Amino acid sequence: MMSNKLLKSMVVFNVKNISSRSFKNLPDFTKNTFNVERGFYNYFQEPHLRFFQNLLGNERVVTDLIDLEKHNVDWYLQFRGSSDVVLKPKTTEEVSKILEFCNGNKLAVCPQGGNTGASGGSVPVFDEIIISMEMMNEIINIDEDSGTVTCQSGVILESLDKAVAEKGFVVPLDLGAKGSCHIGGNVATNAGGMRLIRYGNLHGNILGLEVVKANGEVLNLLKPMKKDNTGFHLKNLFIGSEGTLGIITKVILQCPPRPRSQHVAFLGLQKYDKVLKTFKKARSDLGEILSAVEVMDHATIEFAHEYVQTVSPIGDYPFYLLIETSGSSDEHDEHKVHAFVESALNQHFVLNGTVASDHTKVRGLWELREKVPVGFKKCGWVGLFDVSLPIKHYYTMVDETRSFLKNRVDSVFGFGHLGDGNLHLNAVSKKYDETLKTSLEKFVAVKTTEFGGSVSAEHGVGFLKRRYLPMANSPGAFHLMTDVKKLLDPNRILNPYKIFP
Amino acid sequence: MMSNKLLKSMVVFNVKNISSRSFKNLPDFTKNTFNVERGFYNYFQEPHLRFFQNLLGNERVVTDLIDLEKHNVDWYLQFRGSSDVVLKPKTTEEVSKILEFCNGNKLAVCPQGGNTGASGGSVPVFDEIIISMEMMNEIINIDEDSGTVTCQSGVILESLDKAVAEKGFVVPLDLGAKGSCHIGGNVATNAGGMRLIRYGNLHGNILGLEVVKANGEVLNLLKPMKKDNTGFHLKNLFIGSEGTLGIITKVILQCPPRPRSQHVAFLGLQKYDKVLKTFKKARSDLGEILSAVEVMDHATIEFAHEYVQTVSPIGDYPFYLLIETSGSSDEHDEHKVHAFVESALNQHFVLNGTVASDHTKVRGLWELREKVPVGFKKCGWVGLFDVSLPIKHYYTMVDETRSFLKNRVDSVFGFGHLGDGNLHLNAVSKKYDETLKTSLEKFVAVKTTEFGGSVSAEHGVGFLKRRYLPMANSPGAFHLMTDVKKLLDPNRILNPYKIFP
Repeated sequence: MMSNKLLKSMVVFNVKNISSRSFKNLPDFTKNTFNVERGFYNYFQEPHLRFFQNLLGNERVVTDLIDLEKHNVDWYLQFRGSSDVVLKPKTTEEVSKILEFCNGNKLAVCPQGGNTGASGGSVPVFDEIIISMEMMNEIINIDEDSGTVTCQSGVILESLDKAVAEKGFVVPLDLGAKGSCHIGGNVATNAGGMRLIRYGNLHGNILGLEVVKANGEVLNLLKPMKKDNTGFHLKNLFIGSEGTLGIITKVILQCPPRPRSQHVAFLGLQKYDKVLKTFKKARSDLGEILSAVEVMDHATIEFAHEYVQTVSPIGDYPFYLLIETSGSSDEHDEHKVHAFVESALNQHFVLNGTVASDHTKVRGLWELREKVPVGFKKCGWVGLFDVSLPIKHYYTMVDETRSFLKNRVDSVFGFGHLGDGNLHLNAVSKKYDETLKTSLEKFVAVKTTEFGGSVSAEHGVGFLKRRYLPMANSPGAFHLMTDVKKLLDPNRILNPYKIFP
Repeated sequence: MMSNKLLKSMVVFNVKNISSRSFKNLPDFTKNTFNVERGFYNYFQEPHLRFFQNLLGNERVVTDLIDLEKHNVDWYLQFRGSSDVVLKPKTTEEVSKILEFCNGNKLAVCPQGGNTGASGGSVPVFDEIIISMEMMNEIINIDEDSGTVTCQSGVILESLDKAVAEKGFVVPLDLGAKGSCHIGGNVATNAGGMRLIRYGNLHGNILGLEVVKANGEVLNLLKPMKKDNTGFHLKNLFIGSEGTLGIITKVILQCPPRPRSQHVAFLGLQKYDKVLKTFKKARSDLGEILSAVEVMDHATIEFAHEYVQTVSPIGDYPFYLLIETSGSSDEHDEHKVHAFVESALNQHFVLNGTVASDHTKVRGLWELREKVPVGFKKCGWVGLFDVSLPIKHYYTMVDETRSFLKNRVDSVFGFGHLGDGNLHLNAVSKKYDETLKTSLEKFVAVKTTEFGGSVSAEHGVGFLKRRYLPMANSPGAFHLMTDVKKLLDPNRILNPYKIFP
């Protein structure tokens, strides 16, 4: 059958591009940095290339080194694989034929959406064949009666939201990466984002999926009904499976009516206990229109100011809250928001604040929060942590991390989705220190567990946190995950080195 | 080891009760009515009895025939099993020991919550050992910061709601059976109910579960975080599994803040197209405070009047809508509701209507809807169908069923959760006609499928609809369900004859 040696011709026909290639800022190969052992997979060879070219045509089989680069490296520049090929299917049938072939030939694959993941789940570790979903971007149907949208999985989140907006609906998921991330990738990582507090998680909002199994079998779980209890709800297995159980090709999403009125309050506060009090008050006073509660500490705003030039419109405070409402009546919502802010000021929970309802001003306030991750690319080294915690321990975690690190890094800052207990805890340093990084990771994992939290709130396990899988789950749950993986992907060709240690 | 003959002494020590037992109104044994073949399980014998008595004490091992009866028959009096014993564990450890023993001895079990299920999922078909969860009713913890409640699975839904109400939260699930059904049973059947339109499904609201597997292993999936992406979300496998994959022993539920204001509009309408227009208008005008949209046709209200003596407060109309709002401001909500009703009247969508905000009046209007199922027990024969449909076909289904049945039954009526496309379609007849029943079942299944709906919206598959499992799922999904069942319950001791054909 196939021999295991590398396809030499691949290197030859790409060599012309190497001179124009910039290696600046690229991370070292993941396999070197993390000392991973390659699995027993076949190597990509000329006959495989010919099969894929026959199936997809030359244009949708990418082997050019420069083009490959953006698929081999993650958005955060933390990981780098060395895949020789990116496949760009347009249909479920093509995905099915690709997987059937890869499974039969023991070729490992790495499914890739918008490649905005933060845990390295969407880039290869070795030479896995990348299956990019970017050309599967058709919106198939929007049902105006029910607000359900059916689409291919490669639709960009923002495009999907624009399409449903025209029919009066809103996608119940909002992320900083919305301009690049795919809905299929969102489902695969069970993305949480800013508005989970209002619309709930994807397990609640995804009605149906079409998934291609490792062996190429198309699994039709496309049930468009909000209520359907005809057997096990298998779709939920794939939500958050990070491409290790199948490749999601179609999605049916339930969209709520689009709010007509939006208000954002940006508040300055003195202490974390006031942050908590203000949050509780917001939940009580704003009730059903509360759609986001984001917190940022002073260091976060300072970091954003330095790296992405955003400026707090209310001056300097130890803490900032961004509280958003979305509702159906501008008059009622304005009344609720202003009454809430006034009362929070009178009760001395809040020191200063501004409220915006005009779209441009609302966007401006949101940018203070959303642009933070954009700054990371401009730093030397960033230790990114995405944890969830009982909210009483939410900021204690940041304080304890600061005490632990002392002055061994330039800055430690905390921000995130307070309303859902989801903290993005980051340490920034101009110089990279391997020992420090390792001990910090351990510290955060141990502390989070001590506080009864989760070591991965919304970013998933991916490659970054795979050794936490047994720790973060009971032994029974861990073994059941292994069994489910074996059931759906017995040759382990789907996104190897991810999730499982 | 064990011999397979029946434990004769069981009959002997129960015989004293037979004389006082009333067989009136009890259905025939399911095994006879439906001609089912018993699986290859062992029979319950004296040594088994002794083991259970040692484990639980005599009081929690029920063998008295009269006491057994209410556990052997379902609430709707559709099914009747012939179990010789009901076990009433108080702890997870006891459930674990029971299942380990049953699995080792190939004894089939039937887990039972409040026994209010409508598809016969909670009663035995033959002599399965009933494991009643009624004594596992401890509310373990309510986290006031996050609104999460942790409890044993046998807590009655209404009791749970009362407990969280004291802390300012609401259970995001409301059913007519709330006074009897258990939260564990709700999870096991993925109960939908009245307020799914507002709070979403249980897949979105259940944060964690503890489940005992068939072999007695305790599976700890008790993660209390709203955001947690550390591996596959296994808990979702058990939501809607109807006791066939494990016994749910603990539940962590996310509860939203309790609304302060509640309004109910009860409206009379001429035609279904006006019902649809009014529903769309409600979704648009009432936005985020819309918490239930229930529809009833004239025949439903007539039926309720005859059997449970409720009376329409607005006179006779072909259709009725019950529209509920729940919000944080009485003033704002009242303004929205009155403006909506006024405008719906002016647009001639609605012919008559009444609005209530006072608790007693709100309860009164809800009773018109909630008491309907209570009437079923007083009829001769009721064909109960729980389907979901695209809402444009929602009432066409009722009309077509009437045409199909002509005057072969006394009445056909349709009511249900319009907001979620969930129709309860019922045919009532004083005399039972087996041929008619069979052809009606086929008709409803075929029509529902033709319309792109689901043959079981919220009632589950249970025993009643098990032969629909392959039809209602793609072949791949059906086979994967079978594989998952095999993985978790290789001896098939858990709730046999349910879900699977």
